[in-house]
Amino acid sequence: MLEKINQVNDIKKITPEEYPILAEEIRQFLLEHISNNGGHLGSNLGVVELTMALHLALDFPKDKLIFDVGHQCYTHKILTGRKEGFENLRQFGGRSGFPKPNEDETDLVIGGHGSTSISSALGFATAREIRGTDETIVAVIGDGALSGGMAYEALNNVGRLKKNFIIVLNDNNMSISENVGNMSKYLNHLRVGHAYHDLKENVKKALMSIPKIGVELTEAIQRYKKGLKQIILPPGMWFEEMGLTYIGPIDGHNVKMLKETIEAVKEIDAPILLHVMTKKGYGYPIAEKYPEKFHGVSAFDLETGKPKKKKEKADYTDVFANQLVKLSKEREDVVAISAAMPSGTGLVRFQKEYPDRFFDVGIAEEHAVTFAGGLAAAGMKPVIAIYSTFFQRAYDQMIHDICIQKLPVVFAVDRSGLVGADGETHQGIFDTSYLTSIPNMTVMAPKNRYELTEMLKFALDYQDGPIALKYPRGTAYTGLKEKLAPIQIGKSEVLEQGDGSVVIFAVGSMVEEANRTIEQLREQNILATLVNVRFVSPIDKHCILEQAKTHKLVITMEETVEQGSFGQKVATLLMQEGITCGFLNFAIPDIFVQHGSPNVLKEHMGLTADKMTEKIEKEINKMR
Amino acid sequence: MLEKINQVNDIKKITPEEYPILAEEIRQFLLEHISNNGGHLGSNLGVVELTMALHLALDFPKDKLIFDVGHQCYTHKILTGRKEGFENLRQFGGRSGFPKPNEDETDLVIGGHGSTSISSALGFATAREIRGTDETIVAVIGDGALSGGMAYEALNNVGRLKKNFIIVLNDNNMSISENVGNMSKYLNHLRVGHAYHDLKENVKKALMSIPKIGVELTEAIQRYKKGLKQIILPPGMWFEEMGLTYIGPIDGHNVKMLKETIEAVKEIDAPILLHVMTKKGYGYPIAEKYPEKFHGVSAFDLETGKPKKKKEKADYTDVFANQLVKLSKEREDVVAISAAMPSGTGLVRFQKEYPDRFFDVGIAEEHAVTFAGGLAAAGMKPVIAIYSTFFQRAYDQMIHDICIQKLPVVFAVDRSGLVGADGETHQGIFDTSYLTSIPNMTVMAPKNRYELTEMLKFALDYQDGPIALKYPRGTAYTGLKEKLAPIQIGKSEVLEQGDGSVVIFAVGSMVEEANRTIEQLREQNILATLVNVRFVSPIDKHCILEQAKTHKLVITMEETVEQGSFGQKVATLLMQEGITCGFLNFAIPDIFVQHGSPNVLKEHMGLTADKMTEKIEKEINKMR
Repeated sequence: MLEKINQVNDIKKITPEEYPILAEEIRQFLLEHISNNGGHLGSNLGVVELTMALHLALDFPKDKLIFDVGHQCYTHKILTGRKEGFENLRQFGGRSGFPKPNEDETDLVIGGHGSTSISSALGFATAREIRGTDETIVAVIGDGALSGGMAYEALNNVGRLKKNFIIVLNDNNMSISENVGNMSKYLNHLRVGHAYHDLKENVKKALMSIPKIGVELTEAIQRYKKGLKQIILPPGMWFEEMGLTYIGPIDGHNVKMLKETIEAVKEIDAPILLHVMTKKGYGYPIAEKYPEKFHGVSAFDLETGKPKKKKEKADYTDVFANQLVKLSKEREDVVAISAAMPSGTGLVRFQKEYPDRFFDVGIAEEHAVTFAGGLAAAGMKPVIAIYSTFFQRAYDQMIHDICIQKLPVVFAVDRSGLVGADGETHQGIFDTSYLTSIPNMTVMAPKNRYELTEMLKFALDYQDGPIALKYPRGTAYTGLKEKLAPIQIGKSEVLEQGDGSVVIFAVGSMVEEANRTIEQLREQNILATLVNVRFVSPIDKHCILEQAKTHKLVITMEETVEQGSFGQKVATLLMQEGITCGFLNFAIPDIFVQHGSPNVLKEHMGLTADKMTEKIEKEINKMR
Repeated sequence: MLEKINQVNDIKKITPEEYPILAEEIRQFLLEHISNNGGHLGSNLGVVELTMALHLALDFPKDKLIFDVGHQCYTHKILTGRKEGFENLRQFGGRSGFPKPNEDETDLVIGGHGSTSISSALGFATAREIRGTDETIVAVIGDGALSGGMAYEALNNVGRLKKNFIIVLNDNNMSISENVGNMSKYLNHLRVGHAYHDLKENVKKALMSIPKIGVELTEAIQRYKKGLKQIILPPGMWFEEMGLTYIGPIDGHNVKMLKETIEAVKEIDAPILLHVMTKKGYGYPIAEKYPEKFHGVSAFDLETGKPKKKKEKADYTDVFANQLVKLSKEREDVVAISAAMPSGTGLVRFQKEYPDRFFDVGIAEEHAVTFAGGLAAAGMKPVIAIYSTFFQRAYDQMIHDICIQKLPVVFAVDRSGLVGADGETHQGIFDTSYLTSIPNMTVMAPKNRYELTEMLKFALDYQDGPIALKYPRGTAYTGLKEKLAPIQIGKSEVLEQGDGSVVIFAVGSMVEEANRTIEQLREQNILATLVNVRFVSPIDKHCILEQAKTHKLVITMEETVEQGSFGQKVATLLMQEGITCGFLNFAIPDIFVQHGSPNVLKEHMGLTADKMTEKIEKEINKMR
């Protein structure tokens, strides 16, 4: 069946009887490719039928379909003639794992971060109303993404629309981890048909308190429980109150019914919330059973579900999480906060040990940070672990609710630097820029696993203000184990004192590469000095000046964009102090970095030891 | 009565009969001081009784009270022994217009930005539950702030609490401007449909709707002409569904009743939403009539309500707004977006002319930016005007929903630079850092009103990507009118070519100060070159290098923090290119800048022409 699908709208040629067959073939195609190359599995298996139904009911490219957290777009890619390319999915130069406007005209926005789809779709709907055209506009948003504040901000604005506008709530009762919060509970009520249980309790309490008739009336009500619920409380009231017409919940794995429902809903001139029930990992039993584990996967064995490559060494997340658990034993003031990623950030271990001190707030980074501020102001020591790319969402809260008051919050900035296959929406390359722009924010980066351990201890002990501790995705570097000077606020660590020719200041993850670079330089009889920066903010002016004065060439290395980088701070200091020396800064150029493995990307951007050594040698020759 | 209030809890000594007298005296005190010195008027007049009731019902400092948008804290300051100091309110070195933890122990968080209070209070409540203590925790949030996404993120997390937690919804049916969105409509429904009814009354109605209890009661229902839902739905369902117990709405200007309600509500071991109805500007008829005008005021005449100092010249906001209205006549693709500030940003003029192309999305900066992205992707030309300090909230959306796709959105960054009396929460001093860290984002700053006009035209015509146009608060500079080279992407403007000693690169608002500086230098026979930077990103490398090569001392001037500044970009370029010259950068030091008039603050930070000239002369002497 799949061979009939070669371009957009081809799906309309197949018969309703063939829908399940195509669904099954797509599912097999996805399993085959994702098990080979890795990718987002559970969410994509969950929306095969929903995506088919949308493609059957909509008219592309006229109609507009926007996916929230676009990693669920694989079936959409298949149905728009992009089967080819899945063999290189998420690899450098290959097909992106997200919708990409420059890949296909039906990909309207990338949507890598959660909770954005309703806002984007509202933009398309508003443009339509201004122009007076009549395309259908659909946003597909998961129940997890609905915990993000901007989804609510958008919902608060949809009531304005006069024409058809469809929000498909893809409800699988999961974000990446299990969902949290009252919205999630509320959806659960809708799902299981016991909506408004809480209300009933409140109503009951109020009723009982009515003088004279209260008890009797309450008893009467209880006899007609079901009647009460149906009559006074239509389902989906929360959405109705937000200005939407609520329809659902309906089965998300029945293509025919979904198609017919969407076709009917298209005719309603109002904003609609269509509540669709799907199952993450649908059709692949192991993934259905362990949805969190099969959210994003590397290559795995289809039979057993086990990863093809076994993790041999601890990654930075493991090191952070284990050390936090260890240190928190003696420190009852330590609380940990996650934004819908207890597993990804490793905090699930903390949660297991100290459930009363752990808080998963949902996809809600803004709230997470201000909540941490409140906890710190109340005397606790909050550790908030979020990926670098998602902390971007809480920039204002860091400024406003943490740093002005110098509250001692620890920001564990995970996935700092290049993250690889997820591409431009997920690279953690802006953190030095945004974190160091904030007064009172101390920013640290460890060179290896041992230093991360020590830095976390330092951060927990530090009471003079907020500290951000940034560390990369992937295996923790175990080199340079023998070098571990005590951590001191604002002090760098000189790892190698050279001959006065070259001094390299390397930040965090780049110390490993810098160490390789000085080895290669040594082969050319250049004995370089290597400094482990440790503190990106405040910078160690004393060390920088001392080294710069005694070296001909100053070099900085970091895995962040150049604007606002550590290198720019060093250059500024050197200019201010009138120090005459050569200067080279290695950083991410000011571009959005596409998907590809971090090593390939580094190679591409000239940030490997080989490439940097070559450039340094050239610079030395030029200076001679 | 007011003389009896000299420290916290003094209010408890007065009798219920005296409440109205004290309220009146506080109101007069506020009117007197705010009319003399300026400040936030409407919101403070609106919460006199509510704040009194909170102070009567709570036990300070044990209990915790957190104000959302803390500028409504004046009565709280009076009741905590801080009457003295109001004569210098919001002036440099004087009393802050916001809660300040270092001013008083009952000021827990500053809360300058909206929608943060529930998150902060949840931090305090969680710390309380971990410690097992029993203080009462209250967040006071306006209905305007409730449109912000992070308030919803926090609400989504309150259901977890097992103990008492009070959210007072201070509902005046306004943010700064009129409220928008469905939440606002919903609250209005509560106000109008069920105003001042209690829960019991509604429950009775609900009861009557149940068949079999009594046909005669069903008939009673028929008499209501509104929909079944509206008649019988208990008020506050939306909040109940979010896990809160809803109580209200109650009159917010009756101290005794408010006090008793809060005392009763304190005893309920659950999260409570107490819906209180207040009137902005209450007790001062002119402010009640024009709440938007009397939100934040400068000194005014109490009799007439007119400002003491008349605005003589247009400010930058006026220039922007008028030009946008003018250009949009021919440009039907231009749409304008505001986040609850159509008046503050001047967009109210656009709204009047082109109501169908104007969108006020509420206090919802994240949604505003992504919505603009959707509009741009759909072919419109969105102009989104927000204050610099509030754009901080949409940093991730700028990266993720605008710049990755290079969508041609115009960001009108109002109140860029020092804003003055509002202090550290509102200074627009981070925009260069965060805007320029984003690839594909062009950032411009005009030197005077004429250039703002031209730059806005340039930005509207520019289709290659997003442009941010940042301009300061206050009177638009009219000097240098004769200098206006055509705007070219990435090109600076040389205003004055000197003798090769000093070259000054000044950004936007600092061109005026720089122009004064070169005049002062001229008196010392130093003929400085003056460059109007225009483009902070991308920087004009060619011009910078050319000038640096022909001058002994390179100087940068800007009204932003040093980290991530234009100056750092210049220093880096000079180091990379091996240019040997002196370097001085004038910028905001890396601190949070307190309240005070911008001129006083500039003086304090050495950013006036006098101070800078002095420093430049010193540097020149040092270099000789």
